[in-house]
Amino acid sequence: MANKNESITSRDVDFAQWYTDVVKKAEMMDYTSVKGFIDYLPYSYAMWERIQEYLNVRFKGIGSSNVYLPTFIPSSLFNKEKEHIDGFAPETLVATIGGGEKLSDPLIMRPTSEVLFCDLYKRLVTSYRDLPKIYNQWCSVVRWEKTTRPFLRGSEFLWQEGHCLFETEEEAQKNALDVLDIYTDLGRELLAIPFVTGVKTEKEKFAGAVNTYTVEALMHDGKALQSGTTHYFGQGFAEAFGIRYLGRKNTLEVPHQTSWGVSTRLLGAVIMVHGDDNGLVLPPYIAPNQVVIVPIRQENPAVKEACAKLFKELEEEGIRVKLDDSDKTPGWKFAEYEMKGVPLRVEIGPRDLERGECVLCKRVNESKTTIALDGLAKKVPGILHEIHEEMYARAKAHLEANVTEVHSMEELKAVLDKGGYAKAMWCGKRECEDKIKEESLGGTARCLPFDQTPHGHKCVCCGEDADKVVYFAKAY
Amino acid sequence: MANKNESITSRDVDFAQWYTDVVKKAEMMDYTSVKGFIDYLPYSYAMWERIQEYLNVRFKGIGSSNVYLPTFIPSSLFNKEKEHIDGFAPETLVATIGGGEKLSDPLIMRPTSEVLFCDLYKRLVTSYRDLPKIYNQWCSVVRWEKTTRPFLRGSEFLWQEGHCLFETEEEAQKNALDVLDIYTDLGRELLAIPFVTGVKTEKEKFAGAVNTYTVEALMHDGKALQSGTTHYFGQGFAEAFGIRYLGRKNTLEVPHQTSWGVSTRLLGAVIMVHGDDNGLVLPPYIAPNQVVIVPIRQENPAVKEACAKLFKELEEEGIRVKLDDSDKTPGWKFAEYEMKGVPLRVEIGPRDLERGECVLCKRVNESKTTIALDGLAKKVPGILHEIHEEMYARAKAHLEANVTEVHSMEELKAVLDKGGYAKAMWCGKRECEDKIKEESLGGTARCLPFDQTPHGHKCVCCGEDADKVVYFAKAY
Repeated sequence: MANKNESITSRDVDFAQWYTDVVKKAEMMDYTSVKGFIDYLPYSYAMWERIQEYLNVRFKGIGSSNVYLPTFIPSSLFNKEKEHIDGFAPETLVATIGGGEKLSDPLIMRPTSEVLFCDLYKRLVTSYRDLPKIYNQWCSVVRWEKTTRPFLRGSEFLWQEGHCLFETEEEAQKNALDVLDIYTDLGRELLAIPFVTGVKTEKEKFAGAVNTYTVEALMHDGKALQSGTTHYFGQGFAEAFGIRYLGRKNTLEVPHQTSWGVSTRLLGAVIMVHGDDNGLVLPPYIAPNQVVIVPIRQENPAVKEACAKLFKELEEEGIRVKLDDSDKTPGWKFAEYEMKGVPLRVEIGPRDLERGECVLCKRVNESKTTIALDGLAKKVPGILHEIHEEMYARAKAHLEANVTEVHSMEELKAVLDKGGYAKAMWCGKRECEDKIKEESLGGTARCLPFDQTPHGHKCVCCGEDADKVVYFAKAY
Repeated sequence: MANKNESITSRDVDFAQWYTDVVKKAEMMDYTSVKGFIDYLPYSYAMWERIQEYLNVRFKGIGSSNVYLPTFIPSSLFNKEKEHIDGFAPETLVATIGGGEKLSDPLIMRPTSEVLFCDLYKRLVTSYRDLPKIYNQWCSVVRWEKTTRPFLRGSEFLWQEGHCLFETEEEAQKNALDVLDIYTDLGRELLAIPFVTGVKTEKEKFAGAVNTYTVEALMHDGKALQSGTTHYFGQGFAEAFGIRYLGRKNTLEVPHQTSWGVSTRLLGAVIMVHGDDNGLVLPPYIAPNQVVIVPIRQENPAVKEACAKLFKELEEEGIRVKLDDSDKTPGWKFAEYEMKGVPLRVEIGPRDLERGECVLCKRVNESKTTIALDGLAKKVPGILHEIHEEMYARAKAHLEANVTEVHSMEELKAVLDKGGYAKAMWCGKRECEDKIKEESLGGTARCLPFDQTPHGHKCVCCGEDADKVVYFAKAY
């Protein structure tokens, strides 16, 4: 397939440059004057709103309520849980002046809000009757990053963070896994992205967590992208913050805690899983415009009327549709909406119209078909669903073709060099994990998949006994 | 009406304490360890989400798109528009350390985002074809306040801020007034609050604006609350930030700018306009729970079944309904949901049930009626609408009874002392406005109403010629 849009670098020439070209030219973002901070423009923010809608419904289903806690954490509070400080302190942004005066307790822009939720729950939770607490917030967080890339790694990004307390470990673990299922469904139903799911190694888990569960996506270039995580904290934070409640047996108990989040990073995943050399290819359920109507010879009154009629019918079907009747040429419009990844284009011109027909073009495979205008609007939801399924199947095939069982460091390095997951047996020792990263020039343990069926009994690195299956990959 | 909930101070004894009791006991918010920063709990955040839903639909209708710009403004950028700096600099929160290092250009937590939007638009707008730009964002802002009160004045609050550019003054002024109409409709249709609308005086307008338009609500205690504003900026900001575009006649032009916003302050208005000595009284369309079902003798299987059936039917009607089948007493539940302001309570007990009936209790007037269970769910939307209309009518009557035309400083002071609006003729001089504030112990010009029909020709303060009608009041 030739690259029609010459302003976009080819994926295979320079994937990083292709990505940068696409996010900028599709008007998803703009760079600001502060490094690592971006403007989220309407075209990306609308996708984020679709993710919010989907997750708000699903979170409600597990009893979650939305709240909003302060943007800033007092330093004194931030310093209560040691592992957590060690993990986040180096990348914080700190406010030291308020109302013209030096603050005695500087305020840290939240990099994540565990400590604020602990502080709230300490005040709210006094009895087992107050549990479970399942709160979520939509907000931005700041992590002062050295290397940044739009949507993938930024000094500020948008996310949701759920923070929960339960009476028992079982309930808390179930919550962490239930939300992981919700994230998997989000990939399946909205983003058309299949995830590899599992648990993180000690080295890769969240600062302060007992377990971190993850959904990992595979990009077109063979690199993995951590796309969402859920954490079981045990009682560590609750103990550090002094959260106690009167239990069912009238004794003071410490609750079990979880947190979970996905971020605007998911937009980076959508771009890098589905995009091609002509730009974005958007899954229909997240696309800001699902259908674009392009009139051919729009000076023709019959064409104009047919376009307006179809536009109205599609809106009535609840389809997000755009009619571009600007004075640009049809050719310009074709390239523009291909670049913007609109899933379905409808071309209406005088010749087709004489036969009561129009042309449908699917972005995903550039297929063109002629179809009757009469009754088309009713068919579009089904066509969009087909497109979604085709995109999911294609991404799944790409994922499956890029998981390789390896039995030696040479095989592992070869896979990580080419791109994709190396599925390896691992002894569980940190030294082997470190050595794999060093020798593969950056490969990391993405997760221990839930299916731990072994394909060997020796560690891929040290050759000692091993019973852990791990997916290794290079990652964003 | 006796105060059933003894933990809430009576409104007429101490309105400020009543307010504090209600927001805390209704679990709308919690105080954090940093003064002026609050936790927005599910009961208030859910109301904010209803406001977001309403406004997102209406904003879309005027061509607005949602975006998200950074939380922080570089000091160097912030200092470009002088009036704006003078207005906001004293109350900013400033970050000076990032990633452990001192920042060469400190970052100001946005108190409002005019300068960030100007910076974005300078990059995006080059031709008249790029106009209009109508962007809105939902976010929090920080203003370092000395005196704070939940929802009314806080160091951090949630809001939306629209920022727009147009080719002409006419279009920009129309935008500012169109959005003022949307805010008025929000009051009429969602909050059940009638607003006084008009334009601010020079003294009271937004820092950097040519005109500030406002919607003002009257609280139960007779104080006014500025509830939303829209601003026409002229070309001042655009000039300060160097925004230029190639116009229709191929000349470089400077666009005309507006901004507009409402905040979680609206929740304070809902509380103080509608609440009573038993707690919140929520208008149905913003209420997190529109109906609560309270079983009487819930150990009775028929009662249990009837409650579950009605709950399901109401959910199917799209009603936000809660069934409280906890082991608390019915009396406890009545007081609890009265305090939380649930618009409609349904009591289902064995005796009513034998006759196929239940008891409806409207929060707004505590009226109780017996009604057939069969077909009730279909009637509830109509009943909620009646409640909404009754609440709006009551608030409107209170407003109208508290606008008094005054012709002397004595009359003005008497009105402001008692509470309510003093409608006065004013010469337009700042000295008179200042003197009125001083002599009335805090009365301010809330707005020049759009209806400027004079009721005299002399300034209420200096006695000189006057042609301006002004609403003066004490305000939150």
